[in-house]
Amino acid sequence: MSTYIKVPEDIEKRSFEIIEEELGEKVKSFSDKELPIVKRVIHTTADFEYADLIEFQNGAIESGMEALEKGCKIYCDTNMIVNGLSKVALGKFNSMAYCLVSDEEVIKEAKSRGVTRSIVGMEKAGKDRDTKIFLIGNAPTALYQLKEMIEKNEIEKPALVVGVPVGFVGASESKDEFKSLGIPYITINGRKGGSTVAVAILHGILYQMYKREGF
Amino acid sequence: MSTYIKVPEDIEKRSFEIIEEELGEKVKSFSDKELPIVKRVIHTTADFEYADLIEFQNGAIESGMEALEKGCKIYCDTNMIVNGLSKVALGKFNSMAYCLVSDEEVIKEAKSRGVTRSIVGMEKAGKDRDTKIFLIGNAPTALYQLKEMIEKNEIEKPALVVGVPVGFVGASESKDEFKSLGIPYITINGRKGGSTVAVAILHGILYQMYKREGF
Repeated sequence: MSTYIKVPEDIEKRSFEIIEEELGEKVKSFSDKELPIVKRVIHTTADFEYADLIEFQNGAIESGMEALEKGCKIYCDTNMIVNGLSKVALGKFNSMAYCLVSDEEVIKEAKSRGVTRSIVGMEKAGKDRDTKIFLIGNAPTALYQLKEMIEKNEIEKPALVVGVPVGFVGASESKDEFKSLGIPYITINGRKGGSTVAVAILHGILYQMYKREGF
Repeated sequence: MSTYIKVPEDIEKRSFEIIEEELGEKVKSFSDKELPIVKRVIHTTADFEYADLIEFQNGAIESGMEALEKGCKIYCDTNMIVNGLSKVALGKFNSMAYCLVSDEEVIKEAKSRGVTRSIVGMEKAGKDRDTKIFLIGNAPTALYQLKEMIEKNEIEKPALVVGVPVGFVGASESKDEFKSLGIPYITINGRKGGSTVAVAILHGILYQMYKREGF
């Protein structure tokens, strides 16, 4: 039998110690509420560049916490995000996550219009007034669609948008352009991001609330 | 209405062109079967470092293709991987993916033994003789457990192991140590990896088969 660490709590604790050590002076550039999120993103990607790429705007963390405390729906642009989020943690705050890109109707409509399923899914999610938080880890088209709906006042202003689509076509631009809206927003500048990053950001918020509530 | 690209096929095509351009001379260091996998991993992470970190051993791609052609079960160490894999593509080859870390019995047993659910899940998956492929994107303990079972001849030799756990405690070591077994193996050297990377690697294999079969 090998002697590697097998106790889950010890693995996570030691990981965060290593991340904090290697971040060094950079930890000082984040607030008390931002730092746990930054560390969780690095924990998920093993990529310290995220400390330079992450950006928090317009009281994003506080606004997201407030919505979660009241209980809300969270729209995700991939089923992987829904799947990766802790149902237990969300349940404690009467919140739930969902995704519509595999919805039968959405698939049919996207095909007939020749647009991404992400666009059609976002249109439908925007109409649901209980949806206060949006997690976008994959599709720039979903983030553009959300931006258009907000600009046209077609939907209420979200409490929090985590806009971290990954990729080479439109991802960086979509994330930049969203900043002009003045919405509580967490993003990863440039091309990087993804479903696991979106999950890490929301968990970074949720677990702070978790601790505070003494769950 | 913005003028961003909205047609999904165009986005993917253009993305792969950009990746190929930016890889430059490096494309020559990969075989015809390896290159689509490397490009898909970069497409998923927007991180070109993966071209330097990825390693293919012991005819991994060919062996994985052979198992998929016959139809097999694929054990994944996270539900996110199961969720991210294309059910349509797997179905074409009579294959299916599963994960046991959220299994009631596994959770109970892991708690009582004080070990990770990944270890217990892997023990159970190893006993299933239809499971020929293992995708490990999260837990070094799952990769260590698989190694031990292979060394002790407790399980048949897998057709393919994609060992890409991400992290700071044990991840890099677990991936290195697995190399000594001589198993068809695809890995990401160092700390990087993750569930989305595991999905990208298997899709990189599956989509080549898909094209070849003319689906």
